[in-house]
This record gives sequence, C-alpha cells and structure tokens, in this order.
Amino acid sequence: MANKLGALRQLIAEKKIDAYIIPGSDAHQSEYIADYWKSRHWFSGFTGSSGLVVVTKDKAGLWTDGRYFIQAEQELSGTGISLFKMNEPGVPTYGKWLDENLAAEATIGFDGRVISVSEFEGLKKDLSSKEISYKYEEDLLGNMWEDRPTMPTAPAFFHQAKFTGKTTSDKLSSIREEMEKERADMYLTAALDEIAWTVNMRGNDIPNTPVVYSYLIITASDAYLFADEQKVAAIKGELADVTILPYDSVFEFLNKNAAGRRLLYNPGGVSVRLFEAIPSDSKNIKMSTSIIGKLKAVKNSTEIENFKNAFIKEGVALVKLLKWLSEVGTKDIFETDIQAKISELRLEQEHCIGDSFTTIAAYGENAALMHYSPKEGSCAKVLPEGLLLVDTGGQYLDGTTDITRTFAVGPVTDEMRRDFTLVLKGHMALAGIKFLEGTTGVQLDVLARQPIWQAAMDYRSGTGHGLGFCLGVHEGPHGISPRLNSIKLTPGMICTNEPGIYKAGRHGIRTENVLLVKEAEKNEFGAFFDFETISFCPIDTAILDKALLSDEEISYLNNYHKQVYDKLSPFLDASEKEWLKNKTKSI
Amino acid sequence: MANKLGALRQLIAEKKIDAYIIPGSDAHQSEYIADYWKSRHWFSGFTGSSGLVVVTKDKAGLWTDGRYFIQAEQELSGTGISLFKMNEPGVPTYGKWLDENLAAEATIGFDGRVISVSEFEGLKKDLSSKEISYKYEEDLLGNMWEDRPTMPTAPAFFHQAKFTGKTTSDKLSSIREEMEKERADMYLTAALDEIAWTVNMRGNDIPNTPVVYSYLIITASDAYLFADEQKVAAIKGELADVTILPYDSVFEFLNKNAAGRRLLYNPGGVSVRLFEAIPSDSKNIKMSTSIIGKLKAVKNSTEIENFKNAFIKEGVALVKLLKWLSEVGTKDIFETDIQAKISELRLEQEHCIGDSFTTIAAYGENAALMHYSPKEGSCAKVLPEGLLLVDTGGQYLDGTTDITRTFAVGPVTDEMRRDFTLVLKGHMALAGIKFLEGTTGVQLDVLARQPIWQAAMDYRSGTGHGLGFCLGVHEGPHGISPRLNSIKLTPGMICTNEPGIYKAGRHGIRTENVLLVKEAEKNEFGAFFDFETISFCPIDTAILDKALLSDEEISYLNNYHKQVYDKLSPFLDASEKEWLKNKTKSI
Repeated sequence: MANKLGALRQLIAEKKIDAYIIPGSDAHQSEYIADYWKSRHWFSGFTGSSGLVVVTKDKAGLWTDGRYFIQAEQELSGTGISLFKMNEPGVPTYGKWLDENLAAEATIGFDGRVISVSEFEGLKKDLSSKEISYKYEEDLLGNMWEDRPTMPTAPAFFHQAKFTGKTTSDKLSSIREEMEKERADMYLTAALDEIAWTVNMRGNDIPNTPVVYSYLIITASDAYLFADEQKVAAIKGELADVTILPYDSVFEFLNKNAAGRRLLYNPGGVSVRLFEAIPSDSKNIKMSTSIIGKLKAVKNSTEIENFKNAFIKEGVALVKLLKWLSEVGTKDIFETDIQAKISELRLEQEHCIGDSFTTIAAYGENAALMHYSPKEGSCAKVLPEGLLLVDTGGQYLDGTTDITRTFAVGPVTDEMRRDFTLVLKGHMALAGIKFLEGTTGVQLDVLARQPIWQAAMDYRSGTGHGLGFCLGVHEGPHGISPRLNSIKLTPGMICTNEPGIYKAGRHGIRTENVLLVKEAEKNEFGAFFDFETISFCPIDTAILDKALLSDEEISYLNNYHKQVYDKLSPFLDASEKEWLKNKTKSI
Repeated sequence: MANKLGALRQLIAEKKIDAYIIPGSDAHQSEYIADYWKSRHWFSGFTGSSGLVVVTKDKAGLWTDGRYFIQAEQELSGTGISLFKMNEPGVPTYGKWLDENLAAEATIGFDGRVISVSEFEGLKKDLSSKEISYKYEEDLLGNMWEDRPTMPTAPAFFHQAKFTGKTTSDKLSSIREEMEKERADMYLTAALDEIAWTVNMRGNDIPNTPVVYSYLIITASDAYLFADEQKVAAIKGELADVTILPYDSVFEFLNKNAAGRRLLYNPGGVSVRLFEAIPSDSKNIKMSTSIIGKLKAVKNSTEIENFKNAFIKEGVALVKLLKWLSEVGTKDIFETDIQAKISELRLEQEHCIGDSFTTIAAYGENAALMHYSPKEGSCAKVLPEGLLLVDTGGQYLDGTTDITRTFAVGPVTDEMRRDFTLVLKGHMALAGIKFLEGTTGVQLDVLARQPIWQAAMDYRSGTGHGLGFCLGVHEGPHGISPRLNSIKLTPGMICTNEPGIYKAGRHGIRTENVLLVKEAEKNEFGAFFDFETISFCPIDTAILDKALLSDEEISYLNNYHKQVYDKLSPFLDASEKEWLKNKTKSI
C-alpha cells in the first residue's frame, strides 16, 4: 500500500495535481460495484461499501460513515491514510478539509466517471472562495492498476410479469406521466436498479444485486437501453418496448439527440463525464429525487404479495439455520460456516437466486462492528456463551429480503439482557406506530431510538432503509433515519426496522424486521397509515429482561411469535416445528 | 370587500398585470407587523398572522396554514376569496397554482418591499416553464388605501447588560467571527429581532414584539444602524458601537458601499427591493440560516437565569388568573375579560412591559380554532361546564413567556378527559426525552404526537417554537415540528412544548410549557442532552383519565406539581397558596 500511495503522489506531481479524489464508486453510483470499479479498495485496503479517499502530496485521508469506523481503523492501520469519521462533531467533510488544506490556487483531480454531478457541485461550493482547476478526464489509478479485473459479461434475464406485476409498457406510461408534469421531453438515468425495474430485466454484473451495467433514455415516444449487446442478446424479444444500443454509445447519443430538449436527470445519479455529453443548449431539469426511484419504491399489489411470500421462504431458511446453530458447543461452528449454511438453506427455497448481501455472522465482540464481514481463517469460532448476531438476506425472483437476529449461544450477562431488551422496545415502538399521511422517516426514527437514548446509548446508523424488489437490498428514496429526507412514507413502501446497540470490545445487538406501509384509517383529522411487519423469524425471548417491558409490549411480542409459528410451520418438518413451537411460546 | 377586489382588478387590468400577490408582510419579514403594513388584512378581512392573497382577473385565493383554516373560512366568507389550505394533500402552493392558472406569457405584480428574495426565487422556479414578467416597483394597494395608518414613531430604549448578559461589542465580535468563517466582509440584516438583539435596543413599533423598524450593516470594523433618528435620539450614547443613519438611507448606503464586497445576507429576510440596491459586482453569499439568528437562539447564562425568573413571575400571574377564574358560574366572565385580567395581573410583575401576543382565551368550541382571538361583544361567556383554554405570554425585560393551560370550568365529558390525557402524555414524553448531540427538532416532534396519533387524531401545527429574549414570542431558527429543519437542538436553546387536540364544533385542548435544552451526560456513545421545563403553572389533574397514565408519567406529573408549588408559593398570599396547594397535590 505504501508503494501505491507513493506512486500516486508521484503521478499527481507529474500532472500538477494537488489533490486526487478516489470515491470508490462505479459510473452508476451503485452501492455494490463490480470488481473492475473497486479502485478505492485496491488502493487503500478499505473494504467498506462506502468511503472516499483524498490524497495530497503530504496527507491522505479516508472519509466513511459510522457503520465502518471500527473496521476502517483496522483496515487503514499502517497505510498512511487517516480516518475521518463522517458526521461526527468537529470532523470536516472532505470538501471543507480540502478548503483548509489547499492553497488559494490549486488543482484537484478525479476520474469523472465516478463522481456525480451533485457531488461535484457540493465540492465546488465548499471550495468557492479559492481558484480551483479540476481535471477529471483521466483515471489515474487505472494507469497504475496492472491486474485490474475486466468489466462483467454474464448474460441478463427477463423478469416475468407474474413477479413484477407491471409490464415495461405500464412503467414507461407512469414515467411519462411524471415527465409531463415537469414538461420534460427526455429522461436520462444511469441508476442500474431504476433501469432494471423499468425494463423488467435482471442480470449478474454485480454481486448480490441482480442488475446489468446500462443506461436508459426515455422520450415521449421512445426508450433507449444502452447495454452490452451480448448480455441482452437472448432476451431482445422480451425487451421489445426499448431500442437496444451499445453501452458506451450513450455519450454520443446524448450529444446528438439531447440538444434543445427539456431533459430530466438526477444530479446525484449522473456522473460528471456523462453530464458533459449533454449539449449546452439542452434545458436540463434537475430532479431532487428521481421519478423512477419514487415510482419503484411504492410496490404494486403483485410485488407486495410476492414480497410476503419471499419473506416466508426466507423465514423458513432462517428457522433451519437457527435450529442448526443450537448445536453450538457440540460441534465446531465458525462465523464463515454460518454464512455458507444460510446461503445453502436459502438456495433450497423456490425462486432464490442468491444472497442480497454478504451475510454478517458476528460472534461476541465482532458484532460491535456494525457491518462486520468474517474472513475464512481469521474469523471467530462460536463458543457456547454470549451473543451471536446474524444479519442476512436473499435475492428471490419474488422479492429481496433482509433480517437480523441476535441470540444467546450460552449464558449472557445482565448488561446484554438489558441492551437486548432496550433494542427490542425500540423495534416494537416503531413497528406499532400509527402515523398521519405526509409523515417522513426522519420523524419516526426516534421511536426506535428512544429507549436506547434514555439509557444514554445510541446506534450510529439509520433505523431503516427501503428494499428493492429482486434488486438492491438498500433502496431509497425513503428511509427511517435522523438524516433529513423529504420523502413521505406512502402505502406500498417497504422499509427495514433495525435499531441496535454496539459496544466496541463487548457485544453488538440488532433486531431487524421488514415493514410494509399500509392504510389504517381516515377521519376528520386526515388519513392515517401504519406498518405491517412482513418478516417472520423468532426473537430470542430467553434473553429478555421482562421487567423492562410493558403489558402492551409483551402482548405485541406474543402476537408476533404466534404469527411466526402460524406462517412458517406449514413448511417445516416435525422436529423443526417442535423447535419453533418452543421458540415462539408466549412469555 | 367586493369593492376592493373590483378596484384592484381594475387597477391590475390598467397596469397589464395578470396576477397580483399580497403577502401580508412588512419590509422586514416580521411575524407581527405595524398597522401601516397590514394591507392583506385591510384587503381581505383575514386577520391571521400568516397568509398570502393572490388576485387574478377572475379568481382570488388566500393561502394559509393549519392554525388558521377554521378562522380563515369564517373571515373569508362572502369575500369572493377562496381558501387554499397549505400543506394539505392535493392543495397546490400559490406558485404552482399560478403556474396552472396563468397563460404561457403573463405578468405578475407585487410590492417588492414585502416579498423576500427567497420567496421570489421559489416563485420564479415554480413558473420556470413560462415566460413571466414581474412588476414589483409599485405598491398597488397603497394607491387604493386612503386611510392607511402611518409608520410608528414611539421612542426606542436601551436594554441593559444586567438583562442581556452581553454587550453590543461582545455580540459584534461573535458575529464577526462567523463572518470570517464565511470569508465575508459585510453583513446585511433586515430582521428586526436580530437588530434589536445585536445592538441591545428595544422599542414599541410593533404590538407585542418590542422592536424598532431598522436595518443593520456590519463590516469587519464598523456597524451601521438605519433607524428613524428621532426614535433613537435619547439612547444614542448607549448605542456607541454603531453609527446611526436614517432608516431609508440603507438603499443608498448599500448601493455606494457594497460594491466589490463579499456580502452575507439571508435571502429569506431581505426583500426584493432591498436586494436590488446591492451593486451587481458585490459577491453575495446566501446564508441558509442567519448567523445572528443562530447566535441569538442560544441563550447566554445571564439570559437563562433571567428567563427562569421571568417564568416564575409569569407563573405567579397565571395562578392569580386561574384562582380568579374559579369564580366562573358565580359571576359573568367573558373571554375578553380573561384577556384583560391576565394583562393586568402580569403588569403588576416586576419588569413586565406588556403581552407577548394577544391572549387566546377560548371557551368550549372556540378553542378548536387554534389561534382564536375573542372580540369584545361577540365573544363567548364562560359557562360552568366543559373546557376553557388560555394561551398567554408576557414581555418582560428579563424574558418573553408563553404558556397554555386547558382546564375544566365545570363538568367535562369522557371524550374531553381522554383527549386531555393524551395531550398530556405527548407533552410529558417530549419533556422527558434524553437525546444525542446533533438531534434536530423534526426528530423529536413525534414524541409529543404519538399518543394522539395512536388514537387517530392530530394537531395541525408544530409542537414547539423558540422564544426571543424580550423579543419575538416565535423565534427560530430551531423548532420542534414535522417540517424538515436542519438546526440542531443545542444547550441554551429555549423551545415550547405544546401538543394539542382540536375538534371543530366541540373543544380544543393544548398544554404548553417551555423547555430549556441542557447538557445531560457524555460517554462512549457521544454527548447527550435533555430538557429542563422552566415554566410553572398547575395542570388540571381533575380532568385526567388516570388509567391512561403509566407509573412513570404519574410520578413525572407529581414531581412537576411539587416544583410548581415550591417555585411560585413564596410570591403568593395565604389564600392563593392554599388554592395552589390544592391544585398541585399528588395524584
């Protein structure tokens, strides 16, 4: 690593660049990315899904969020790159840091493919009092990276109407309706999940997220899909609503066809390089939130029924896993064994095509790393004491799942018991809320956090994120989080509910279910919505401190466990049923 | 009124204006305004503190928020002006409405003194797909309004250091420190409370808010106060830190002196006309939140001690009022009598200079109008049954107060009892929260709302607003509300806690105390803050449904009432003490 830092510093000195930014993204601002794009990981050694490196001639820093503080400290150790803890008091953003550390006239370099228009605008604003030149034509790391992986080539497949509920033609109509409201005559998106959703196509370009590297342009009469022609060759007939053009031809297409258009785009999802391809006489209309993103987030009734079914299958796989894990102490189980076991159990379920993210199987203090990823050889063996956390999810043709359970594998301390109960109290308070139409996730976040805050603890993450439908396991635009977000929670939206407590060197606890927003009632005060929990898996009642629960909470939990048994038991064998009966009995 | 609407339509037809906007503000974006500026009230008859009228050749509408829906419906009846309920589903903003109702090329007129830069930018954005001309040089209503009141002339007075805790010189230093961070060399503000706070001046230009019509410009070395010289003549010596110039000379001053400057201004607080006075080669830096506003919101230790003292005096006045009100049934008491009585009792307290807003004394169904204002002659007589709501506050040299109590004046229904208890539950949940550093008010709002939402009810207002120090009774930039607001709650901030339930034609309930943000504790998870309730007045325990309260809530209430007695009784006579002892006894 020290060699790479030195080599990059030499390269930027030659190019007269004072600071080089490595954002760790792909050209589509995807959360998970193909190996080809993992230049930040290659360069810094940091494996988290979110983080940005800045290198100057004498300084180097990584900016990442609370999920990765502990992990980043470990992975950056000895690299010469300092950790900047984003959103912590007193920690500057990388833009403000550059403003403080660069001379009044300076040059900043980055690969223009992997920084979005809005990211770039924010950067320019932070540096507005200086005279900064930007060089973003070249991928300097690409020049250094000799054994760089190639772009993925696996074929795409068509996502059938019995799963999606709506045809591409339906979806294009909805998009065009929204375009009309904005008086737009062209729509550009580079977001892979938006494209996959619109054209009902799935693929294998990115681990855990079944999307295809592509661009999409929609006009009032036509739609153009820019994708590797070999990947989509077999499903051309099913993509009849769109014209298929080569992946890289989007730049030239925009340049030729966007002139004079009122073009809608999401500055957070379009790269600086792609934006430069738009002719200057195009009237660009920024979407603060992507139209397709908003449409996609509200699941249709077919998707909802499919989702519910996928979660039952996932629950069945999880019950089998948990029963298997009850053998801890009688045989050697390592964290990576748990990852393998759940993947295997899940693939036995109908329509399962894989995991929706790398399973977090974290024993003891490892669970304090919120997004811990065990490694073969170095990971922990599960001992018959304390807590084990498993956060896992699958990609099914009929839904994307994400569930976390923390449970005792042996004796637990009073502190663990109390922390586990506080997390569950928050989880239940959020699940049980009724709320007025128009409510946003930032308003509800505190419900899950309150019992934890009252005990002077906190978790450094949001409480909930959306889920794609056989797409990304983290999907916007809504969420339940302290971050300001103007997206209203709307019936049909799906969101996780995952408060936690993480204590470095001690333990980590998280209880995660998935919520569906539903209509509750309407009266003189307005329309009220509530949540239906659609994920089913037993919660470990053996480690509850019952004295901390109200009667209402106890009855909520008993009712949830009754549902868990009723929904999952038809798909279990006799011994599994007996195990589940015991795990779901009333307290 | 029909005459005025006709006259304005004739005027705009002559001027070739297609739509005329009447925002009901003054040139300083004040919440309460001098009579001179009340053109929207004069024109439409609507008396609410917030509302905007738009008139076209065949349509006319008033946009106002949830506080005023019922009142606006009554006051607009028969005027030909339709009510648009802001923030309700399906109701367009006035900008969107103009976009829908105007031709592709049209002219919009307004008085450029009373629309802010940001309001105007929002409007232009809403209308960006049309070719709109704007005429804002003329005040058309001024041309029609023959008996318009004159601008106020009462003298200003100096606010002594024993009250303010900081001198003007201290405050200018803090402002200049923030200016340096923005690399600004000039700061412009038109906000009357910001100016009053900075120069430690108070006045009598606006009812209920002791400010002086003025502008303030600050540079690295100087400060210029633009105010009527006669008003400030007597305190010139005490305003030695600022150069005093005539009120109207600010336009010329800016024009001459702002050229080439990096000028900080708040586009929400600077009018279109004032902005136009800034030379085009000035580098204008928009503040999303005013620097002075942020400094002013965090009270210093002297202000906090003074505030606490002012609230004790206010509590004493309120106890006297409530005891007097226990005579309902034995003598005639009208709503306006209550307004007069509390003003009188308050003025008996040391350093009281008046009311901080028109007291809301609302009996029975009148209390469903959230900001009801009783009128002599037409207001209700308080009968010995049901609920009475009193929302009142004072201006003291040592603080600005705002407290609401709802109490039984006779038998109450079970529905009133339940609603009253739910409101109190929300009130106590907010008052008792501990929260992490960095938390914003939008995150906490639901705590007060949750018990009310669970019963499928809501209140159409925020839960809490800041309070000025002998200044505006509603003060930003923070608040506790469903509206997105990025201002973090910081130790030293003051905020009301006022959930409610309002049922048209039935009753209105609100319980309002005032919270001070304090440091609670610090640990590995971060710094935690909590609230100290600093307003003291008995809450009517006779109308509680005790079965709805948890043990924790009951002990919170008993503890609050013990404090009410301990803090207020030293200032009461024997019979008042006895009355209060009874009203604050444990339940």
